[in-house]
Amino acid sequence: MKLLYPTSIPLDTQSLEGFSVTLQPYDVKSPIPEEHTDAEILVAWTNSADNLKDAAKRLTKLRWIQALAAGPNDILNAGFDTSKVTITTGSGLHDRTVSEHTLGLLLNAARRFYEMRDYQLQNKWPGHLGGPQPDRPKNAFTTLRDANVLIWGFGNIAKALAPHLTALGAVVRGVARHPGVRNGIEVYSEDKLPELLPSTDALVMILPGSESTRNALNAERLKLLPSHAWVVNVGRGTSVDEAALVEALKKGEIGGAALDVFVKEPLPEDSPLWSAPNVIVSPHAAGGRPQDAEVLIADNLRRFLAGQALKNVI
Amino acid sequence: MKLLYPTSIPLDTQSLEGFSVTLQPYDVKSPIPEEHTDAEILVAWTNSADNLKDAAKRLTKLRWIQALAAGPNDILNAGFDTSKVTITTGSGLHDRTVSEHTLGLLLNAARRFYEMRDYQLQNKWPGHLGGPQPDRPKNAFTTLRDANVLIWGFGNIAKALAPHLTALGAVVRGVARHPGVRNGIEVYSEDKLPELLPSTDALVMILPGSESTRNALNAERLKLLPSHAWVVNVGRGTSVDEAALVEALKKGEIGGAALDVFVKEPLPEDSPLWSAPNVIVSPHAAGGRPQDAEVLIADNLRRFLAGQALKNVI
Repeated sequence: MKLLYPTSIPLDTQSLEGFSVTLQPYDVKSPIPEEHTDAEILVAWTNSADNLKDAAKRLTKLRWIQALAAGPNDILNAGFDTSKVTITTGSGLHDRTVSEHTLGLLLNAARRFYEMRDYQLQNKWPGHLGGPQPDRPKNAFTTLRDANVLIWGFGNIAKALAPHLTALGAVVRGVARHPGVRNGIEVYSEDKLPELLPSTDALVMILPGSESTRNALNAERLKLLPSHAWVVNVGRGTSVDEAALVEALKKGEIGGAALDVFVKEPLPEDSPLWSAPNVIVSPHAAGGRPQDAEVLIADNLRRFLAGQALKNVI
Repeated sequence: MKLLYPTSIPLDTQSLEGFSVTLQPYDVKSPIPEEHTDAEILVAWTNSADNLKDAAKRLTKLRWIQALAAGPNDILNAGFDTSKVTITTGSGLHDRTVSEHTLGLLLNAARRFYEMRDYQLQNKWPGHLGGPQPDRPKNAFTTLRDANVLIWGFGNIAKALAPHLTALGAVVRGVARHPGVRNGIEVYSEDKLPELLPSTDALVMILPGSESTRNALNAERLKLLPSHAWVVNVGRGTSVDEAALVEALKKGEIGGAALDVFVKEPLPEDSPLWSAPNVIVSPHAAGGRPQDAEVLIADNLRRFLAGQALKNVI
């Protein structure tokens, strides 16, 4: 049996040895060489669309693709025969790095580093942002202490993020398809959003990209947020109605938006989001650095060989 | 006995009741009214220089000043007779807010939000900062995970900050006058700096302003830092040799500097710091929001009345 692993990420392949499997590196930007089209397992990371389309046609023995991305839409769209090929995601490999970036975006918003930068570029001291300040004023998002943070899409990333927010004094709540208490955080179902949004200081969106999440944050829900509330999106751009968001920002109906993902990436030069008030544009930089991928691959490889259920099946 | 408390900050004065002391509010920007010059205790916050100078002359019965600032240089310079007047600082009231801001500055540096902003202002997507990235590359400060953070000036703020950094995966070490282990962090004496600086990814300075800390971070010590290392200063501006810092930044001898404090504040319009490469200018915004001041005032008031040693005596 042959496993193809990508050379687009340094992997400690020693951690993948010990199975009756041939480990074969491959270039993710070129067609798979003819002698390796017999592979049954493909590990994918930053593959080109052409590489994937070609692989979908030529890797006729393929049975399992282990993606290292958390949301491998590119693989889903490449034309693999999903009746024969199981696809597993890299969910979990990005938790720490995405949660760090999200924390940074929240602090950027609360402490207004983006506004300080605008002043700095003009050699101007933004005195209104420094010196004596009211502590935790109502109707403002100036600190995570005592702030109500709502995480919509409460999966592994949220579980990694929440303790950092709680340690800084935030009150964290979650929204997910299945309600319940997870890691000490109360998670509500989406039908509770009308009650939750009005008391939210910062809404963190970590929804996956799919038809069911399209425009999840729409005009109606944006109106339920207080006028000082920030929206932080590190999930998928399609989960926010961008036109409604720009409208809400321009009218001052929300406090601001820190966005790492967009409907179209790179964000088109003529997008109104670049210059809408209190927008922070981050170039899909939260993740993109899978961590400890070998552990997931080895665990799933063992399960695959044993005929057991794989982790992270789509 | 009379205690004057400032109206420049909302205080829960009920928490100060129960002592044989008259509680009297006063305006920190005007001279103390004649009928209140008999006060023995003065609580100070954002007093004008004139108010303090005048008080130093006219409050002849004064025995104790409780500052709410952590480093009340304004009070020390106002001419109070320190043989008669004990001055206590607000050390501890700013720990959480300064540590939150410092964490924000560190993430701003690691995730390069300031650089993203420069691109955003031109409607340009900073593709080099997003998408697939090497994870924790050597000789770069791109994440707190596995980063070596050295906190110089290891007091209460550092104790509040360190757990947040550790939780994000940083390796935290400290430098202070007295070495030892504090809250699980190894704290070294300053003579160990030549050994510590070369392996530092981010140097956080939280030194007080005094003659002994002037230019503590000088050209010689800057040269010991790796070329990717960031300097974050949230203590006092005088602890950094600004000319040497600008030189190091221009020559690329360090990775960047996130500065909340400066030798002269507001930072003069012609300072080369505004536009030196990889500088983040924050307008003395880390603190300025004393938290739970009543607890400190009440505790020190009880001690004062009991003839016990006060907390935070300068």
